[in-house]
Amino acid sequence: MNAEILTIGDELLIGQTIDTNSAWLGKNLALLGVQISRKTAISDSENEIISAINEAFQRVDFLLVTGGLGPTKDDITKKTLAKLYGCGFRRDEGVSAHLESIFARRGRRLLEINRQQADVPEVCEVLHNEVGTAPGMWFDQKGKVLVSMPGVPNEMMHIMENRVFPRIKNRFKTPEILHYTAVTVGVPESLLSKQLEDFEKTLPPHIKLAYLPALNTVKLRLSGQSDESTILRAEMAGYFDKMCKVCGDAIFVREDISPLKHIARQLIQHNIKISLAESCTGGFIANQLVMEPGISKVFNGSIISYANEIKQRELDVPTEIFRTVGAVSEECAKYMCESALKKFNADIAVSTTGIAGPGGATPEKPVGLIYIGIATAKGSRVKKYYLFGTREQFMNRAANCAMMMVKNTLFDDFGIL
Amino acid sequence: MNAEILTIGDELLIGQTIDTNSAWLGKNLALLGVQISRKTAISDSENEIISAINEAFQRVDFLLVTGGLGPTKDDITKKTLAKLYGCGFRRDEGVSAHLESIFARRGRRLLEINRQQADVPEVCEVLHNEVGTAPGMWFDQKGKVLVSMPGVPNEMMHIMENRVFPRIKNRFKTPEILHYTAVTVGVPESLLSKQLEDFEKTLPPHIKLAYLPALNTVKLRLSGQSDESTILRAEMAGYFDKMCKVCGDAIFVREDISPLKHIARQLIQHNIKISLAESCTGGFIANQLVMEPGISKVFNGSIISYANEIKQRELDVPTEIFRTVGAVSEECAKYMCESALKKFNADIAVSTTGIAGPGGATPEKPVGLIYIGIATAKGSRVKKYYLFGTREQFMNRAANCAMMMVKNTLFDDFGIL
Repeated sequence: MNAEILTIGDELLIGQTIDTNSAWLGKNLALLGVQISRKTAISDSENEIISAINEAFQRVDFLLVTGGLGPTKDDITKKTLAKLYGCGFRRDEGVSAHLESIFARRGRRLLEINRQQADVPEVCEVLHNEVGTAPGMWFDQKGKVLVSMPGVPNEMMHIMENRVFPRIKNRFKTPEILHYTAVTVGVPESLLSKQLEDFEKTLPPHIKLAYLPALNTVKLRLSGQSDESTILRAEMAGYFDKMCKVCGDAIFVREDISPLKHIARQLIQHNIKISLAESCTGGFIANQLVMEPGISKVFNGSIISYANEIKQRELDVPTEIFRTVGAVSEECAKYMCESALKKFNADIAVSTTGIAGPGGATPEKPVGLIYIGIATAKGSRVKKYYLFGTREQFMNRAANCAMMMVKNTLFDDFGIL
Repeated sequence: MNAEILTIGDELLIGQTIDTNSAWLGKNLALLGVQISRKTAISDSENEIISAINEAFQRVDFLLVTGGLGPTKDDITKKTLAKLYGCGFRRDEGVSAHLESIFARRGRRLLEINRQQADVPEVCEVLHNEVGTAPGMWFDQKGKVLVSMPGVPNEMMHIMENRVFPRIKNRFKTPEILHYTAVTVGVPESLLSKQLEDFEKTLPPHIKLAYLPALNTVKLRLSGQSDESTILRAEMAGYFDKMCKVCGDAIFVREDISPLKHIARQLIQHNIKISLAESCTGGFIANQLVMEPGISKVFNGSIISYANEIKQRELDVPTEIFRTVGAVSEECAKYMCESALKKFNADIAVSTTGIAGPGGATPEKPVGLIYIGIATAKGSRVKKYYLFGTREQFMNRAANCAMMMVKNTLFDDFGIL
């Protein structure tokens, strides 16, 4: 079944607020078999609201509306809905009591402007909002359902989870929809799609493959839709498995998760201590790993060795390296990761040395050149990459390449799949 | 002038991607006097795309379309636009050459599927995309302008900044709009707005003040609109100066720039070497500084000392500190920054030690507690903060607090304003 989302509020249009509600709604409704076919953001204007709702109901039978339910003058959604449905207001006793208890708890007086939040259009059913002051509303008229909710993310989620999801299952017949996602690293979208060309042809019409490229990664997402939940599950699992086999080593993880987060979790789960000696990535990889709660169990620390003097003094890179092959070299990367392994008592250590740009390039060493080293007790290995983009993109790509090397090393040296 | 945004792609509807493009577009177009009046997200479906474009052009003359320009089968925007404008394709030589040079640089073969990215609808003008493979396209037919761009954020931003913004000024009549922005650190929005209450009353109707709060910072933006450019400029400068005086020490910088970027630039300009010893911020501050090109002139390196063992061995924190006051303490922060100063031959060193959460808290040391230390040859100082939010928010807030301390130290110890 298709549905649409309508968000009301200037803050979304002028870019003051990033709309995270829609992504949450899209993801969670998909799990119930409700496909969001369109999202529209408009301003707090009566004409805009009425015409956007009328347009949406020409396309779908189910519309989720967020925003414009606050107590202040610029919030006009409720008034506009009453006008649209041609009804008056009634004061809801449940909401009244809830407001009184909230204000009593905060030791504040309930003003008339607050009390009016209990006034709802007569034809709607109230969707109680325990975590806020504005109730949700369910309108079901002429075969079309409209749900109005506050735009505050946790209030919207609360109302959806506790009031709307159960009602959707009762009110609509929805098919089962499943998504299976795998993340690849290092293989471009065009090459993947060539590899998967034959596989794609075998897909039945109700299962689709999408390519979602980012920096040195492509997410492959299989989406299936059916009324036969058990059959679909088995079918999807089979196709997903085939797809992953076709891609072989390009598959980083058979889950919708970033390579850095996946590795952080793997390290924590298997108690493998990691350290880093970063030059050109300037702490980017360490910082991304450290974003994972619980990382302190497997991360003692790491060093950012930008200057040659620090590479030499803190990581024992011999000075002759700088005179001969230079700091951006396989040899330097090797010394760096091997020293970081010892210095921080780690089980696995990663080093980076390269040219992030825009300055610092030479004819032999262009912007984007990077050597990534990995050391464990069993030895070390270094790989050379050419990565492009801004400094930030360069670091992101380098991190993904490094995580692919860590993944392979976790398998080779620790037997972790 | 009003414009609309149309985003194409299932990933936005099923919630796999959060739409950050629209907020960026809304914010940056507003600076040019273009108001986003509606944003619509639809799937990669020809019918949907055509009807959404036709609907939008009934409301506005300017439509920005993002997404659906990849090389794979599910990307149909380009084909659909050619159909909509009733034209064929031409291969663009500039794009062809760009694709060849990208693939040559990466040492990869240019497949026909990649080469087709140089095929564009005959009636469009190509908006060259230096940072990606899919070009932007500018359609200007029957008084209506449609801009099609890739959905990848940095590519979209690159095309907007370099190709679309200049064209908007030429193609449309937009009034002169000026923005003067100052960034404050550490003072909450509610307090600032109280301080600025009287100042705000003196503003003429064509000059407005906006508060843009973020993590421990509030941007104060004065926006003026007029047809008399020279008069407006003088007027704005006067009001901006007054506003900054009212805020006093809360003003971090009189420019729309992040505190971290501002400090990085100050350090480079005055040749002051910085280093860091980060515990709870896990390389966040170092990595943000390193994002600034040219930082290598004043950044030798830094250490992330997560475990006590590393704080002791690498930064000479005495073991008795851990037994008595603990690693999250004023004393530990002091040792850390003083050692980092020496270890990395720096002129100024920053240390952080705290509880980023969600774990690790004790009744005396709650999540959010952090000590930040600053050392120079003249001595060191430590400040204690309570910062809240997720791990990432905690690190952002901590970085802003640290930058305020660096700014004050640059003035006190180096005479840099």
